[in-house]
Amino acid sequence: MVSLGSMKDNQVLLAFSTYATIVVVKMMLMSLWTSYFRLTRKVFANLEDTKLFSSTVDKKLVGVNPDVERVRRCHQNDLENVIPFVLIGLLYALTGPELSTALLHFRLFAGSRIFHTIAYVGALPQPSRGLGFFVGFGVTLSMAWTVFRTAFTH
Amino acid sequence: MVSLGSMKDNQVLLAFSTYATIVVVKMMLMSLWTSYFRLTRKVFANLEDTKLFSSTVDKKLVGVNPDVERVRRCHQNDLENVIPFVLIGLLYALTGPELSTALLHFRLFAGSRIFHTIAYVGALPQPSRGLGFFVGFGVTLSMAWTVFRTAFTH
Amino acid sequence: MVSLGSMKDNQVLLAFSTYATIVVVKMMLMSLWTSYFRLTRKVFANLEDTKLFSSTVDKKLVGVNPDVERVRRCHQNDLENVIPFVLIGLLYALTGPELSTALLHFRLFAGSRIFHTIAYVGALPQPSRGLGFFVGFGVTLSMAWTVFRTAFTH
Repeated sequence: MVSLGSMKDNQVLLAFSTYATIVVVKMMLMSLWTSYFRLTRKVFANLEDTKLFSSTVDKKLVGVNPDVERVRRCHQNDLENVIPFVLIGLLYALTGPELSTALLHFRLFAGSRIFHTIAYVGALPQPSRGLGFFVGFGVTLSMAWTVFRTAFTH
Repeated sequence: MVSLGSMKDNQVLLAFSTYATIVVVKMMLMSLWTSYFRLTRKVFANLEDTKLFSSTVDKKLVGVNPDVERVRRCHQNDLENVIPFVLIGLLYALTGPELSTALLHFRLFAGSRIFHTIAYVGALPQPSRGLGFFVGFGVTLSMAWTVFRTAFTH
Repeated sequence: MVSLGSMKDNQVLLAFSTYATIVVVKMMLMSLWTSYFRLTRKVFANLEDTKLFSSTVDKKLVGVNPDVERVRRCHQNDLENVIPFVLIGLLYALTGPELSTALLHFRLFAGSRIFHTIAYVGALPQPSRGLGFFVGFGVTLSMAWTVFRTAFTH
């Protein structure tokens, strides 16, 4: 039986908090990476942002750049995968899994998403990125299955 | 008064876990649906993915396809609606609602989003998709209202 | 020591619930804002939606409009920042912070995101929007840091 009474007394919840925060912060850093590429490639999404580089607003600085779009696709893939992990992972942590099993799930997910980011932004040959994606996807489905099983047997 | 001490002792939280996991897994499946359309329509977002179909990377396989874009818009709409449901729904479950009222909310949401997906990907005539959207939107707002009322009266 | 046993007995969790719900509902309203601009500018993303304005489906009504795209970019920025705030904020609330410290975080975030929306949709000159973004970003990182510190010292 699991208690969420205090995070400090629940090893699985403490472990979940650590890994969930790691992957969410990693996801947030994609925003800064996009900004960095926008500034160095001088390609903006909003007219008012171009004033950072010219005395007047400059329509030529609004556009699409392949490096920026690649980081944005990676960010979007994080939104589509990291958020489900955190939502289902919290419910999973409340089902009272073994700490070792839970740690395996959390570490595999965090590792696979960091690898996915490197493979995506570095444009590594496939199936590198696909592998990173499917390992993370599988971990979340495995936790979802445990949540279902717990809900239907109680 | 509601206890989150153990998911297994809390009927509302158990019900929430089930329906939240259903809609999140449904949302995740949109990724696979997109991949399926990318592979069968041979339209990719990344140059390195085209090697799956030709011996060298092939710029002609990078582009936009209406079927792929439709599934992606549906996926995006899920991100914009399913995630708020899960976030607000968890807080709602902690306010200690009646099980029957909570189940009505959760089932209506899950049903409306499954209908929304069918209406979107199947391009059913409006207002089918609009109806699916607004029922789900209303359910989340109704739960948000309960959270506010609980917070302001305690 | 913090108890999530009952939301009603936990001041930090009550405060978190209020502010998390405010920013999530604000994010959801971006959907309606997009719809409003699509209807008034008569620019749709789906062919079947054009029937709302003509007796037959009309390809000319499918396209891109700068007002619509601006609201959509603002909505996307919310997804990228509001959801991490709620996910990390819940874990932060469970670490047992001082109510005054927690309230400072929650209020600063909610205020910065409302300002960010006004700056974005109103196309205010930079660094207005950048300021709104970075204050919210910093609040979430500060809460993430507290979660890490709690996890590593227990």
